[in-house]
Amino acid sequence: MAILLTGNLDAEDYADWRRHLLAHLPAGETLVLATEDYDPEAVEIALVANPPHGTVARHPNLRFIQSLWAGVDKLLSDPTLPRHLPIARLIDPSMTQAMVECALAAVMLLHRQLPAYAAQQARGEWRQLAQPLTAQRPVGVLGLGELGSAVARTLAGLGFPVSGWSRSPRAVAGVNCLSGADGMRTLLEGAEILVNLVPLTPDTEGLLCRATFERMPRGAGLVNLARGGHLVEADLLAALDSGRIGHAVLDVFRQEPLPAGHPFWHNPRITVLPHVAAYSEPSTAARIALENVAAFRAGRTPDALVDPGRGY
Amino acid sequence: MAILLTGNLDAEDYADWRRHLLAHLPAGETLVLATEDYDPEAVEIALVANPPHGTVARHPNLRFIQSLWAGVDKLLSDPTLPRHLPIARLIDPSMTQAMVECALAAVMLLHRQLPAYAAQQARGEWRQLAQPLTAQRPVGVLGLGELGSAVARTLAGLGFPVSGWSRSPRAVAGVNCLSGADGMRTLLEGAEILVNLVPLTPDTEGLLCRATFERMPRGAGLVNLARGGHLVEADLLAALDSGRIGHAVLDVFRQEPLPAGHPFWHNPRITVLPHVAAYSEPSTAARIALENVAAFRAGRTPDALVDPGRGY
Ligand SMILES: NC(=O)c1ccc[n+]([C@@H]2O[C@H](COP(=O)([O-])OP(=O)(O)OC[C@H]3O[C@@H](n4cnc5c(N)ncnc54)[C@H](OP(=O)(O)O)[C@@H]3O)[C@@H](O)[C@H]2O)c1
Ligand SMILES: NC(=O)c1ccc[n+]([C@@H]2O[C@H](COP(=O)([O-])OP(=O)(O)OC[C@H]3O[C@@H](n4cnc5c(N)ncnc54)[C@H](OP(=O)(O)O)[C@@H]3O)[C@@H](O)[C@H]2O)c1
Repeated sequence: MAILLTGNLDAEDYADWRRHLLAHLPAGETLVLATEDYDPEAVEIALVANPPHGTVARHPNLRFIQSLWAGVDKLLSDPTLPRHLPIARLIDPSMTQAMVECALAAVMLLHRQLPAYAAQQARGEWRQLAQPLTAQRPVGVLGLGELGSAVARTLAGLGFPVSGWSRSPRAVAGVNCLSGADGMRTLLEGAEILVNLVPLTPDTEGLLCRATFERMPRGAGLVNLARGGHLVEADLLAALDSGRIGHAVLDVFRQEPLPAGHPFWHNPRITVLPHVAAYSEPSTAARIALENVAAFRAGRTPDALVDPGRGY
Repeated sequence: MAILLTGNLDAEDYADWRRHLLAHLPAGETLVLATEDYDPEAVEIALVANPPHGTVARHPNLRFIQSLWAGVDKLLSDPTLPRHLPIARLIDPSMTQAMVECALAAVMLLHRQLPAYAAQQARGEWRQLAQPLTAQRPVGVLGLGELGSAVARTLAGLGFPVSGWSRSPRAVAGVNCLSGADGMRTLLEGAEILVNLVPLTPDTEGLLCRATFERMPRGAGLVNLARGGHLVEADLLAALDSGRIGHAVLDVFRQEPLPAGHPFWHNPRITVLPHVAAYSEPSTAARIALENVAAFRAGRTPDALVDPGRGY
């Protein structure tokens, strides 16, 4: 029986994953690639990196799906996905660290008003702006999971007053943890910088919309590192125009790559990042994915199982 | 006998300092402002914020000079400054914190390649660049004093391998501390990002020059938060042109405000900040300055005395 690697990957990515997976493949396991000739009936385990819809369902003897990505929204959006199978997300400390670093770069950019200084520089204008310290700059983090809690902890450690938001009540040291609709309102009212790290689910789709922006302090900064589907694009453009939102750092978009001519490209109040906050690096992720496979094979509960009902 | 407040300040700054100084003025002390009519012979203590050359020398009964700025290079460059008087710098934890935050913003900007992504955004280009983690990005900090040591500690706490450089050997937890010419060479060879926080003295003038840049890894980032006199401007422009230096964040300049038409304004590889890294805030600094004055009055050694021989 075989482990299948399948995804929306180019030849180089396939080769890279293959190399690192083979280096950690447990004895007795066979690895096949979706790009090769293989017997779908022989596949018991699938390592998936956003394969095209319909792919997973073509394997009648599949028993376990291990995502190679942290987010499973695209995978779960496949209507043919067999709903009874266990699905695990990828949790990789290196990816968490990369996300913390990206969030920190974005938050410090906004905190130290670097976009405003860039605009002044373009005009040749020398003007000092009032500058609060981190202790005077409340930050809100939406999502207190693997990534959000690490981001919240790091920001709190640098002196930012941090509030965090989750579905169920959480406790993160040094972070004011909130949940539910009331918690969201409280968080937004204080958030001079808002960092989004919730998963994309039917409940969170369009969360970053006009009603959200209107609760935030005027001129607040927005950092979307989760999914493009969280953001109502027209609402952001209007909020930037009116000054309700001062600047947005966006790493994710409804359509990726962000299409040519999209108004985000040339809006001076938007920093466009090409989905680079944190990606799965085969050099660390291959081992982690295969350890989860080994846990499944040994009859133990794999790490980071997705609850398809919740959507994450 | 009186305490004089004198500096290169506008009316609003004078009023602001005055208000905060009066709030902390010890009983029995009198505060006079250089903008008022006062008797120079009555002045025993001067609180100075870069006053014009010749100002300090006009007070024959002066016994103690307390700078309201952290750097005293401009003050010491006054040839009429009475050399026998004790001079104290200002050390303000809020200013140190502001410097740490500015250095962190600049280092994260470079670490996460935000200037390269901004250039891509301007071209409408969606391209993911290889991204190391902080642990793979060695940073060098020149100067391990009040500010440099705090910056080095914070960067080390975020996972960057940090080397620091000082005149005399220092020990900073988690930082590879180097000194002397050999130490500088070692630091430069590893420094993918170099942060300058030495004081401007005859020894450090022009420290950021071609010979320095040539020792650094190709494409390294430069952050100058100390003084414009440290940087040989033509050498930086050449190093940016050749790709030797990838991007520079500059907060200080030989001439401030940076003159109109200066090539730094429109160089896409330079981020110009208008000397905003960390300034003395009267709300915190007035109390600290006056506590040092009280120490002097009580016959104790004031904090942060300058050694005019060393120049800092
Ligand atoms: N830009 C990038 O490069 C990149 C890279 C990796 C991941 N991501 C995105 O980051 C997301 C988060 O990843 P993760 O590993 O931190 O996920 P996770 O561990 O599953 O955590 C998700 C967090 O969001 C909260 N949440 C979910 N639905 C919610 C709702 N309706 N209301 C309030 N809170 C809700 C959860 O609440 P509970 O604690 O109550 O469950 C949890 O705290 C991923 O789904 C992915 O979209 C982006
Ligand atoms: N941009 C801004 O807004 C801003 C704000 C405040 C200050 N500053 C600048 O920051 C500078 C540093 O402030 P600070 O309070 O950290 O000063 P500090 O406490 O006096 O520390 C200076 C450090 O530089 C080292 N140093 C001095 N001369 C050196 C030399 N020739 N070779 C090697 N190392 C040398 C010293 O070595 P030792 O440890 O051996 O003495 C010390 O570690 C100030 O002088 C000012 O110019 C800029």
